[in-house]
Amino acid sequence: MNRTILALTSLVAFGAAAQQTIGLNHDALFPRLERDSVFFSLNAPGARQVSVTGDFSGPMTLGADSLWHAAFPIAGPDLYIYNYNVDGMTVTDPANPYTVRDIAHLFSYFITPGTGYLAGNLPHGSLTREWYHSDKLGMDRRISVYLPAGYNENTDRRYPVFYLLHGMGGDETSWSELGRATYILDNMIASGNAEPMIVVMPNGNARQEAAPGETTEGLYATTMDRSVSPRDSFEGSFGEIIDFIDSNYRTVPDAAHRAVAGLSMGGGHTWRLQQLMPETFGYYGIFSGAVGWKGNPDLMKEDDPSLLPASPLPRLYYIAIGRDDFLYPLNKTFRESLTKAGIPYTYEESDGGHVWTNWRRYLTGFLPLLFK
Amino acid sequence: MNRTILALTSLVAFGAAAQQTIGLNHDALFPRLERDSVFFSLNAPGARQVSVTGDFSGPMTLGADSLWHAAFPIAGPDLYIYNYNVDGMTVTDPANPYTVRDIAHLFSYFITPGTGYLAGNLPHGSLTREWYHSDKLGMDRRISVYLPAGYNENTDRRYPVFYLLHGMGGDETSWSELGRATYILDNMIASGNAEPMIVVMPNGNARQEAAPGETTEGLYATTMDRSVSPRDSFEGSFGEIIDFIDSNYRTVPDAAHRAVAGLSMGGGHTWRLQQLMPETFGYYGIFSGAVGWKGNPDLMKEDDPSLLPASPLPRLYYIAIGRDDFLYPLNKTFRESLTKAGIPYTYEESDGGHVWTNWRRYLTGFLPLLFK
Repeated sequence: MNRTILALTSLVAFGAAAQQTIGLNHDALFPRLERDSVFFSLNAPGARQVSVTGDFSGPMTLGADSLWHAAFPIAGPDLYIYNYNVDGMTVTDPANPYTVRDIAHLFSYFITPGTGYLAGNLPHGSLTREWYHSDKLGMDRRISVYLPAGYNENTDRRYPVFYLLHGMGGDETSWSELGRATYILDNMIASGNAEPMIVVMPNGNARQEAAPGETTEGLYATTMDRSVSPRDSFEGSFGEIIDFIDSNYRTVPDAAHRAVAGLSMGGGHTWRLQQLMPETFGYYGIFSGAVGWKGNPDLMKEDDPSLLPASPLPRLYYIAIGRDDFLYPLNKTFRESLTKAGIPYTYEESDGGHVWTNWRRYLTGFLPLLFK
Repeated sequence: MNRTILALTSLVAFGAAAQQTIGLNHDALFPRLERDSVFFSLNAPGARQVSVTGDFSGPMTLGADSLWHAAFPIAGPDLYIYNYNVDGMTVTDPANPYTVRDIAHLFSYFITPGTGYLAGNLPHGSLTREWYHSDKLGMDRRISVYLPAGYNENTDRRYPVFYLLHGMGGDETSWSELGRATYILDNMIASGNAEPMIVVMPNGNARQEAAPGETTEGLYATTMDRSVSPRDSFEGSFGEIIDFIDSNYRTVPDAAHRAVAGLSMGGGHTWRLQQLMPETFGYYGIFSGAVGWKGNPDLMKEDDPSLLPASPLPRLYYIAIGRDDFLYPLNKTFRESLTKAGIPYTYEESDGGHVWTNWRRYLTGFLPLLFK
């Protein structure tokens, strides 16, 4: 075959294959950031009514360019999630390949400059998805493990361990995906704002082996009630996780080098772990915490006299919550009882409610306090 | 507070929080499988014209239930990708949280029974995303490493290594996500059809540090041409990858325990690695391979006399391609020249074209031939 023809054929063939089997998207329809605003554009040629939902909420208008447009002010540096509602159907942005799953719902997202939630030009840690066996729960269970940059090179060094727990409806992928934990860790360790540490993100649903799609159950749409578990079942099996980590990684296996924190249900797990094994962890973080968690949200109650931490008291007992969080009253009562009992705690109160925006911020605020 | 009221409040509060910030989807609108057909349903109340695209192609009709419906025959067990086109806009399925990215395009997907592409109730390997340094490419680069079940327990055991390469427009996540490689490995190792092995999936784009969204470039829509690289740049830096793996994992560092395979551009990389370092690998797999790859598809030519493998010849030289693949003629010419030169190879020819359906199958066919 003639060389010139073949060269052309190859190009055309790659193009044809792409069109046939691979979606290419050259549209510049990503949400565009300009000063303190975000501009959304959508190509929905047949639509009659279009709006933006998620972290932004409002109608889009059809422009002279035949695209739908909307602009919103940006509150500050953050990861923002959104969907488009097109004639009553809620979809992800066709021009944006970046989506994140929250429970069973997919959102498109973008990240503004200045967050610390993107990869930096700096040493990177690793993230492993692996499995440990739980005798108490009677199953192999999936777990995510972050190792800081340098772990493989510094083979004589042992590291502190931070156990980071998700909320109701979440799983062992929530903190790395929605929570951007690996980026936050990489960035904060590189800047000296956090100690190099191992971060362990288990699945806190005692009846679940792993995240949706990662088990023999195949692909299903998960629901919040899959998080409901027998009381203390996850917390009571936590020693197995610690044993697994201490056996397989170069840890410093004592309370001064072990922290635990969680959001919502995971804040409840954290609260309970302190009571069940008070000598195991030195540092506790309760983010928008379901304090008094008994395996089920409707079993919690504010007036429980048994909510106080057990002895010995933690080196750090960190509580953070948003003023609009539905768990704010519960946490307020809890803090008052801590104060009354003379138990010290560190408190951060933020704007907003029960949202990942706050949990990423609380993680960022908590990390510098660890292992000092 | 009264306990009964509080219990109700908690339930309502969790529900309210969910509606406010977390999408729940209880609709049973997943593609439904029945005998040899798939039934799609979409709730698009305002739409005028809806169709299914991707592995299936055809119009949907509005039913008496106010949902859009379409049914298609299923060819066989597989992972199937699809989108909905609603009045000219192509979107993922709002009822299906499972999507996969191909280049810059998101597809919804489902997996039929009998594929081996889902997690089994059997020992699970692990998957790590980590970074190695390339002096030759002048950057830290992201790499995916699969370790077989038992790696952590059998600390005296050393393992063979299989390097698995993606195609043009792909990255270090392609084989684990679109390729379902970790599931295929887990299942085939458990059934005794593959040796326990380490599988290494690097990023084959010499100018890229990592997959889209994983670098300082932030979130962008990747394109095929990001795969175009100076000739031999990736292949010429491959020794650094092997050194990294042999330094950090318990490998058997010889050709009898080292395999490499790739799809399309990665098949070209595989072909070229044999020529550049013929004593390094014992086993080669060229899946829909861009044989003659010179860093750019339009530089390839069929009639190149220098395409033959270098000496020493491989233990296994495996070529697989679909009859409808645009690279079929190139591979046919190549096979003829192998035959003419008396160079043995193993050949698998399949239906279909340049698609992941075939690459998952070729991987499944290739694995049992390794390290025997």
